[in-house]
Amino acid sequence: MIIVKGGVTTAKGFVANGVKAGIKKSGNKDLALLYSEVPCVAAAAFTTNNFEASPVKVSRLHIRNRTHQAIIANSGNANCANGKTGDASAVAMTESVAKSLWLDKREVLVASTGIIGAPLPIKNVKSNIAPLVSGLSKEGGKLFAETIMTTDTVAKEFAVKVKLGSSVVAIGGACKGVGMLYPVMKTEKHATMLCFIATDAAISKKMLEEALGESIIDSFNMVSADGDMSTNDTCFVLANGMAGNKKIVKKGKDYKKFMEGLKFLSIELAKMLARDGEGATKYIEIEVRGAKSVEDARAAARKISTSNLLKCAIFGEDPNWGRVAAACGAVGVDFDPDKTDIYLGSMKALANGAIAKSYNKERARKFFKTNKVNITVDLKCGKNKATAWTCDFSKEYVAINSEYST
Amino acid sequence: MIIVKGGVTTAKGFVANGVKAGIKKSGNKDLALLYSEVPCVAAAAFTTNNFEASPVKVSRLHIRNRTHQAIIANSGNANCANGKTGDASAVAMTESVAKSLWLDKREVLVASTGIIGAPLPIKNVKSNIAPLVSGLSKEGGKLFAETIMTTDTVAKEFAVKVKLGSSVVAIGGACKGVGMLYPVMKTEKHATMLCFIATDAAISKKMLEEALGESIIDSFNMVSADGDMSTNDTCFVLANGMAGNKKIVKKGKDYKKFMEGLKFLSIELAKMLARDGEGATKYIEIEVRGAKSVEDARAAARKISTSNLLKCAIFGEDPNWGRVAAACGAVGVDFDPDKTDIYLGSMKALANGAIAKSYNKERARKFFKTNKVNITVDLKCGKNKATAWTCDFSKEYVAINSEYST
Repeated sequence: MIIVKGGVTTAKGFVANGVKAGIKKSGNKDLALLYSEVPCVAAAAFTTNNFEASPVKVSRLHIRNRTHQAIIANSGNANCANGKTGDASAVAMTESVAKSLWLDKREVLVASTGIIGAPLPIKNVKSNIAPLVSGLSKEGGKLFAETIMTTDTVAKEFAVKVKLGSSVVAIGGACKGVGMLYPVMKTEKHATMLCFIATDAAISKKMLEEALGESIIDSFNMVSADGDMSTNDTCFVLANGMAGNKKIVKKGKDYKKFMEGLKFLSIELAKMLARDGEGATKYIEIEVRGAKSVEDARAAARKISTSNLLKCAIFGEDPNWGRVAAACGAVGVDFDPDKTDIYLGSMKALANGAIAKSYNKERARKFFKTNKVNITVDLKCGKNKATAWTCDFSKEYVAINSEYST
Repeated sequence: MIIVKGGVTTAKGFVANGVKAGIKKSGNKDLALLYSEVPCVAAAAFTTNNFEASPVKVSRLHIRNRTHQAIIANSGNANCANGKTGDASAVAMTESVAKSLWLDKREVLVASTGIIGAPLPIKNVKSNIAPLVSGLSKEGGKLFAETIMTTDTVAKEFAVKVKLGSSVVAIGGACKGVGMLYPVMKTEKHATMLCFIATDAAISKKMLEEALGESIIDSFNMVSADGDMSTNDTCFVLANGMAGNKKIVKKGKDYKKFMEGLKFLSIELAKMLARDGEGATKYIEIEVRGAKSVEDARAAARKISTSNLLKCAIFGEDPNWGRVAAACGAVGVDFDPDKTDIYLGSMKALANGAIAKSYNKERARKFFKTNKVNITVDLKCGKNKATAWTCDFSKEYVAINSEYST
């Protein structure tokens, strides 16, 4: 696998665009389109929030179609809690694209992000489909990534290439965060993280779903900014087969290589989300190892990564690592506190449940002053591990989220 | 039931005190003692955090004793993650009190609150037992409540009297919060909320445990400041029988009256904790009704009350109530979003999953400017309800918790 510069249009056959449709009050770009020249198989993972947005409901129906060729996405409005009008607007978004690109509406997927409980200005969407479609281009990948941004400060793109047989398969993606960020997504069920991945791999729909399912567990589902699960989280992957590899139809060597590429890409995008979390001044990695099960490791790592108290301490560069222990103990997984070790970077702070001999408060203070804070908890009761990514909790986070709708 | 001015020394036979032992860096009072002139039966609820503090471990053993007569508590240090030294210090606290008051150490309960992962200065405790004991008085209830404070801005006391037969029974309590505040306590199992309740009721230990269990579920276990469960949460209730009522030994009329008094007191103390949550500028009540089960109602109300995004919006007086829907949907209880109503005070904002006709943005804006924000979610799928209490999420919260240990 190699890392290449790129995003949603890196794979063969994909073009994209982003325009200003007047949905965002700021007047920035807010309507984006991704299109494949040939039909794709698609897989999707959606939020498990019971209050799901209208675009999630519609995409959940449309994903059942055998093929897909386009994804329309808007920022500035979540189209959630808008009742039947909202559902109709989401359908109308897919219909408008379908009409313009000679597709069936079920071949079009839709995603939205922004404020909840405000009507989506569907007229603005409809009146901007023509320029959106006519401007589709290979260079539009970057535009696409910029258009889906809300409180994001940087556009988030990543791409890799994997060799399957003699064929080179590209996998490129774009995503946005960066508040109401605590995805718990499931494939084929119910993510305001939005992620769009486009690949030219030849792969069956079933294998694509499997690969997406395997990759999100240890990537997007392990990132958070604030612990608030969105009504709109969505991760789409389109595969158009134009790389010409031998079609992946079972979990063999090629599947594994493809899945590893997809997972690597997903983890890199997830880390970008954490680095750009609302108000973030520091990037945080929490690794839990020595857990009885991988599920325990994931649960503990994620619980620690969502501790407001720990995140405030890291913002303030205050070496109050006891909050790591408190958060770990709150998760409800089975481990012995009296055996547990906690590391700040490479320095052991807690050894077998008590302050380690190697602990040095001045070194801890220096460690908390770095921009990347990596904390490891070793439960020493098993062989399983997991990593969660987040950011610190700053006064700026409160500022951003105390004036979001106004 | 009547409400009376008072606290832990309102009930007959209880005296208390609080002194400066040099545990807090600020030099404020940090060592407190509650004592009953006659032996009591006691019940306790402790945190369910797996990383439990040494005083929790010790009190969990001591609570098995048939009678109790004293509780020692310190603020400024949680005595958690201190290993065997911490356990020995917690035991030493009970031993010192026992020796001075001619008790068995198992008749003494202990609680701590403050920083995690720092050695408790046990010498300071021991050298201050003599003035602590000699200063015990009926007037010391207020001193007790002041001494247990950490980031609390006000001392928290409450007292009620209930009539059982011809006897008047007093129930008084003191508690402290107000960060790392998300109690999930269980009786006889594993609460840094600390609560101390003293009553002169005559009641069996078993019935006292039952009454405490019933009262915490809908009081302390429904309050939060930040969603971070503490390693030290503890709620103690001592009953010394000096009111002379007919001893409560079964769940009859007297039990019910006593439990209602205890529950009312606990709810009032819980509300005080929410009002004084770290950095709080507003008090928030979340009621969920129409739930399939009371457990669903409790889970949903508490989930909404811990949404960082909602709490930031309320701090900023930004009427972004869509965040209520998102948080409610994230809890994983069964309800139909398309039937759900949300009320801001008395104004319906969401009706059957869509913006209500009665919704008026200017009225919503005014509502968010009040100091008490009460939001109701009606799931309309059952007859059960629950209320959770919290505070807004301010820049001051971040400030407090970014420099706690330094």
